[in-house]
Amino acid sequence: MTNQSEMTNYLQAFVEGMISSGVEQAVISPGSRSTPLALLLHRQAQIETFIEVDERSAAFFALGLSKASTKPVVLLCTSGTAAANYYPAICEANASHIPLIILTTDRPHELRQVGAPQAMDQFHLFQNHVKEFIEMAIPEGTKVMLDYAYWQGMRATDTACQIPKGPVHLNFPLREPLLPDLNQSLVTEKTTEIFAGKKQLSEEQLAECVDVWQGKKGVLVVGGSHTPEEAKIFIELAEMLNWPILSDPLANITSGSKESPLIMSYADLFIQEVEMIQYPEVVIRFGMLPISKNTMLWLQSLNETTTIYFVDETGEWQDQLKQTQVAIQAEEQTFAKEITGKIKTRTADSWRNQWIDWQEKTEQQLTELSEMKTLNETSASILVHKKMTKNGQLFVSNSNAIRFLDRFSTPKGNHYHLFGNRGINGIDGIISTALGMCATNPDRQNVLLIGDLAMYHDMNGLLLAKRYNLPLTIVLLNNNGGGIFSFLSQRQLKVEDFEPIFGTPIDLDFSLVAQLYGAEYVKAETLEQLELLLEATQKQPKFQLIEVVGDRQENVLLYEKVIDGLKKKLGKK
Amino acid sequence: MTNQSEMTNYLQAFVEGMISSGVEQAVISPGSRSTPLALLLHRQAQIETFIEVDERSAAFFALGLSKASTKPVVLLCTSGTAAANYYPAICEANASHIPLIILTTDRPHELRQVGAPQAMDQFHLFQNHVKEFIEMAIPEGTKVMLDYAYWQGMRATDTACQIPKGPVHLNFPLREPLLPDLNQSLVTEKTTEIFAGKKQLSEEQLAECVDVWQGKKGVLVVGGSHTPEEAKIFIELAEMLNWPILSDPLANITSGSKESPLIMSYADLFIQEVEMIQYPEVVIRFGMLPISKNTMLWLQSLNETTTIYFVDETGEWQDQLKQTQVAIQAEEQTFAKEITGKIKTRTADSWRNQWIDWQEKTEQQLTELSEMKTLNETSASILVHKKMTKNGQLFVSNSNAIRFLDRFSTPKGNHYHLFGNRGINGIDGIISTALGMCATNPDRQNVLLIGDLAMYHDMNGLLLAKRYNLPLTIVLLNNNGGGIFSFLSQRQLKVEDFEPIFGTPIDLDFSLVAQLYGAEYVKAETLEQLELLLEATQKQPKFQLIEVVGDRQENVLLYEKVIDGLKKKLGKK
Repeated sequence: MTNQSEMTNYLQAFVEGMISSGVEQAVISPGSRSTPLALLLHRQAQIETFIEVDERSAAFFALGLSKASTKPVVLLCTSGTAAANYYPAICEANASHIPLIILTTDRPHELRQVGAPQAMDQFHLFQNHVKEFIEMAIPEGTKVMLDYAYWQGMRATDTACQIPKGPVHLNFPLREPLLPDLNQSLVTEKTTEIFAGKKQLSEEQLAECVDVWQGKKGVLVVGGSHTPEEAKIFIELAEMLNWPILSDPLANITSGSKESPLIMSYADLFIQEVEMIQYPEVVIRFGMLPISKNTMLWLQSLNETTTIYFVDETGEWQDQLKQTQVAIQAEEQTFAKEITGKIKTRTADSWRNQWIDWQEKTEQQLTELSEMKTLNETSASILVHKKMTKNGQLFVSNSNAIRFLDRFSTPKGNHYHLFGNRGINGIDGIISTALGMCATNPDRQNVLLIGDLAMYHDMNGLLLAKRYNLPLTIVLLNNNGGGIFSFLSQRQLKVEDFEPIFGTPIDLDFSLVAQLYGAEYVKAETLEQLELLLEATQKQPKFQLIEVVGDRQENVLLYEKVIDGLKKKLGKK
Repeated sequence: MTNQSEMTNYLQAFVEGMISSGVEQAVISPGSRSTPLALLLHRQAQIETFIEVDERSAAFFALGLSKASTKPVVLLCTSGTAAANYYPAICEANASHIPLIILTTDRPHELRQVGAPQAMDQFHLFQNHVKEFIEMAIPEGTKVMLDYAYWQGMRATDTACQIPKGPVHLNFPLREPLLPDLNQSLVTEKTTEIFAGKKQLSEEQLAECVDVWQGKKGVLVVGGSHTPEEAKIFIELAEMLNWPILSDPLANITSGSKESPLIMSYADLFIQEVEMIQYPEVVIRFGMLPISKNTMLWLQSLNETTTIYFVDETGEWQDQLKQTQVAIQAEEQTFAKEITGKIKTRTADSWRNQWIDWQEKTEQQLTELSEMKTLNETSASILVHKKMTKNGQLFVSNSNAIRFLDRFSTPKGNHYHLFGNRGINGIDGIISTALGMCATNPDRQNVLLIGDLAMYHDMNGLLLAKRYNLPLTIVLLNNNGGGIFSFLSQRQLKVEDFEPIFGTPIDLDFSLVAQLYGAEYVKAETLEQLELLLEATQKQPKFQLIEVVGDRQENVLLYEKVIDGLKKKLGKK
């Protein structure tokens, strides 16, 4: 048996181990050291492979694939700085619990610490932003080592998929020759079944919750991320309790998995403006805080008359307000379903009615504003939300885009799936992640709402759309710079300090970007035109860039106008 | 004293500490948490600041600034994945000994491990790819803490500048409010002087070297990176010993700091083809191995009759061949100068004459080849080298670009400065690093030689050229894909395996890229046209993209033709 054949069998066994634990897709960046793994993945019938030269985009693309498919996705690159380009997406995957299997290839031991080209220390390269780091053995062809390779592929993939899900990193020292034997067939017929349990409360614990909660004045607060199907479970719980529900956009409660008057989609706008006479006795939080700063401030203002329950299966204690009085460590949907089934007494309507009144008055105020009928970044964001259809996929970028969507979108029963990168909320890698989402379900409506700085940051990702014909509609809110800072304290600065460091206009003609990557380009001039363009995405998905020219100052003025109107309408002194 | 004022004084003291140790430039990426440091750096008269939204490009730009200025450069970004984007450039800086001061800003302790937005663990974020990691204290305004902040700025910068130079990372936990008091003046009048010693051998050690070396048949092997002024010192040593000198392109020996027949610029082409009757008795290596694989194989083939000396002031033992018999840990230029001054006996001409004969025959063979007179990637690379003038700056990308330059360029006394990223040899960040070089000396001739994949990988960097009017001439060798693999073992693969994974054509119209970023664009059609364009860069530097369309197969065929011709001419059986 030659070395080449031994290496092939060893790596093939590893790949089969990953397949056994559910790997179906891999994103490969070209390189020399990674050659045998690249070829084996490429030749593997059960694995769909994508190629992307820029490893940063490749990693975010893998993140998007896994977000949409909820399956583990493999990343493969060569030695050196290539792997370091994965880091931003890995940090995001770790924070947002996405199972990525990162395979880096490396010089073997005898070529380390000797100045060999394209070599650097890859041990624990991603620090504690991966769930585990594994240095693989040098390939050998013995049964023991084939079992080992299979086992590591199977086990590492499962590790990535266990709660809390997240990335794992395996480093492969490989010797030359790097060409595998492509004529070899499967080396193992193994499959390993996994019966995975999940955290559930006892009957007694459940009964205690129901006893305390039913009939009380309560509020549900649901953070991201959830699928529309999962979101429905929370809405059903709210309905059974007869409580208002506040949520993060990525919880997919507002995106309309189920219509309900209890969904307080405008909470960010009204919650700090209303005269609140009755405060909740109970708040049940699921996962991280919603994005709304006003909701956060409102929660922070609650006093000891409110009991805070915090449900989180990860056990990570991610309660920024440190208010948790009862931590419920259980799988969230199962828990919510069980509670829903046990509630006997609904809370009186008077409690929820005041909330519904606020929500309705806010909607009314928005409808009255003439600015909502002209094209601007706010009205465009509202329209994108409205024009999403059943099973459509919308990816929303960070900074302003997600805030516009959070503030102004209302549940309309359109039942689409909203995605975002809200682990660490970076503006990097947004396009690639959205394209990963699109590649998973290319036949659906696929839209990305993004600002110009995030667009610029990840333009390289567009090569994936070109190469794989991914029919993503990009709605670009272009206010030529960092629009979020006009909402923050930095706006107090003098213009000569503000513009170069926070405004940061980039003055790019994005029609050229569209042309470069083969996207259709339209500059939307009116709200009606944007409406037609978005309606077309429902039936005919295609790769296109729709630019909406915005104005940073105008966004702020419109927001202030909304708030001023609400102050009058909702009667806070 | 308000908190805002205390924070301002504390951070200002830190900045003044950095200035005391030589910081003159900073590259800032916008963000909210980094606001006070960004504003203080921006307002500081002694510091030139650059802004770049994409942190990956920002970091490579800082790398280029430091490479060209040889001074420490500051990087600043906000919390979260922003910093992770720095990682590729940091790995490269660490491997190639470039002093970067990386400042990340962070949530304060009370907002960690609680799910606060845009927060992640930034401790030891860059693992062992920085020389040190420092978690700064929360800002306070006491004298003790101002002294501390100044001290850390001064000390960390000096740490980055000590041999082996490299990046350091400081993480700043900052509380709101994040706006500094911009009306405050300098908080300290301190400056700290540093008298830095360097490693030098004793007179006895030097005498021993001279005794052993003089009159012997020897070869000098010089790795990168050196400035042209430093390179001259090695050439003078070679002349005094009367030995041939083999070098890496980045050693700037071939780029012509001084003409000498002893410079074996074509070693990669001839060294494996010649009938070598006499082998060297002594090889003195300076730093890492040159890029030439053939030179490496030749060195590897030497037996025990050759004694190998390895000079390296870092003490990092970066000898991939593990042949070192005498490790000389001393500052390289000082050591070379001292030896040059002590040599009394030059080696007989017969030894060097055979080498000069091989060099001349190779040049003759290249001149005879008609392909060298038509435009292709090889002839374009040769021309770029020839058209560089005194004090010009040429940045050369990895993969094929630097290999073409290494194989085919000959010392012509043009005395320019060649730069590259040869720490880990990635194809990432090349444009940004070259722009950092250009920004340091914008009035000189500034050229970048790059392939299409590296160009694609770092297109975002071009925004820096647009924003700061950087007059870089980019010569793009476009063979639509990974040209290097056609020279490696992967070329044995079937086309259906080769093209998607290694060929990876990207089919981009680079004239659109030029238009997007405001560069002039020309597609060179003939060698004469390219010559005129390059001559113009000598007098009128400007931001332009010159595209040379190449062919991956043609590159290989031309190379094989050269080697075949040399085999005949140099008479190896």
